Amino acid sequence: MSRHFEKANGLFEHPDEVTQEYLFNQTMLRVKDPKRSLDFYTRVLGMRLVRKLDFPEMKFSLYFLGYLSEEEAGDVPKNDAQRLTFTFGREAMLELTHNWGSEEDPDFSYHDGNAEPQGFGHIGITVPDVYAAAERFEKMDVTFVKRPDDGKMKGLAFIKDPDGYWIEILQADMMEQQQS
Amino acid sequence: MSRHFEKANGLFEHPDEVTQEYLFNQTMLRVKDPKRSLDFYTRVLGMRLVRKLDFPEMKFSLYFLGYLSEEEAGDVPKNDAQRLTFTFGREAMLELTHNWGSEEDPDFSYHDGNAEPQGFGHIGITVPDVYAAAERFEKMDVTFVKRPDDGKMKGLAFIKDPDGYWIEILQADMMEQQQS
Repeated sequence: MSRHFEKANGLFEHPDEVTQEYLFNQTMLRVKDPKRSLDFYTRVLGMRLVRKLDFPEMKFSLYFLGYLSEEEAGDVPKNDAQRLTFTFGREAMLELTHNWGSEEDPDFSYHDGNAEPQGFGHIGITVPDVYAAAERFEKMDVTFVKRPDDGKMKGLAFIKDPDGYWIEILQADMMEQQQS
Repeated sequence: MSRHFEKANGLFEHPDEVTQEYLFNQTMLRVKDPKRSLDFYTRVLGMRLVRKLDFPEMKFSLYFLGYLSEEEAGDVPKNDAQRLTFTFGREAMLELTHNWGSEEDPDFSYHDGNAEPQGFGHIGITVPDVYAAAERFEKMDVTFVKRPDDGKMKGLAFIKDPDGYWIEILQADMMEQQQS
């Protein structure tokens, strides 16, 4: 029996045992202005800032955000080093990198990966109700790339974060809904 | 008491209750050749392919990969629609997008986000032992951006995936180790 759930060329069936302890910890995006990014990710998207690291010598800071349940939040270590271990030992953290001073340059902007040259596409947030989420974002003046009913793919949206990175907004059961 | 674990400008303390049901589901990267990418992510990094979606009309395919424990893998629905709901209802999925035909163009490549114009930086995989992981990658002829002891940041590595995207390889307790 395959360890994968689809057939495709290139799939490997017998990875080293040790890789089963690997975990997908983080996705890093550079941001121009941490103040506006932290506002967006904590107010609009409801994440928590778990750890911040400043590197004065190299003039940059890292912000690690994620979704923590109340229970998990209660277990986060107060001690800085231990809280970093918690941050790195967990799946699905968003790491924002701020190179000091970029926020003061009116001409400065980061590349979203969807304009040319393409590469990175988006991060995706699953929400309980994509239409309700989109309505909420409209009220908050969030910029849309695609509203839920735009285009061919109904029931999923794309919004932009303050740097213009695309964020897919999706509902876990959207395909089951469409088939029913 | 703050819901965040660090002080920083821009942090919002009272996000809507509904955002506490949001989850950071996916990170999407475009890949030139799914065969070599699937080999890399399943053989070198040990992920599983959970769901694949083909869009023949628009000539692209999506591959959703992630780390699943044996137990979790046993719970993955066989039914395609339900397995998609599983895929979208879970944290830390890697979505690879393949625009058909790119693998046949020798001059085609994607942009890694670290060369100019910069934006997206990397994804990060936490491993139990970063030195052991790096040694394993060396044997597999993986391309390194940074070996664990290169540069100022000891104990963390960066490798490249087949498209050149950077992958940080880190050990959760590396800072605690360095302080002890």
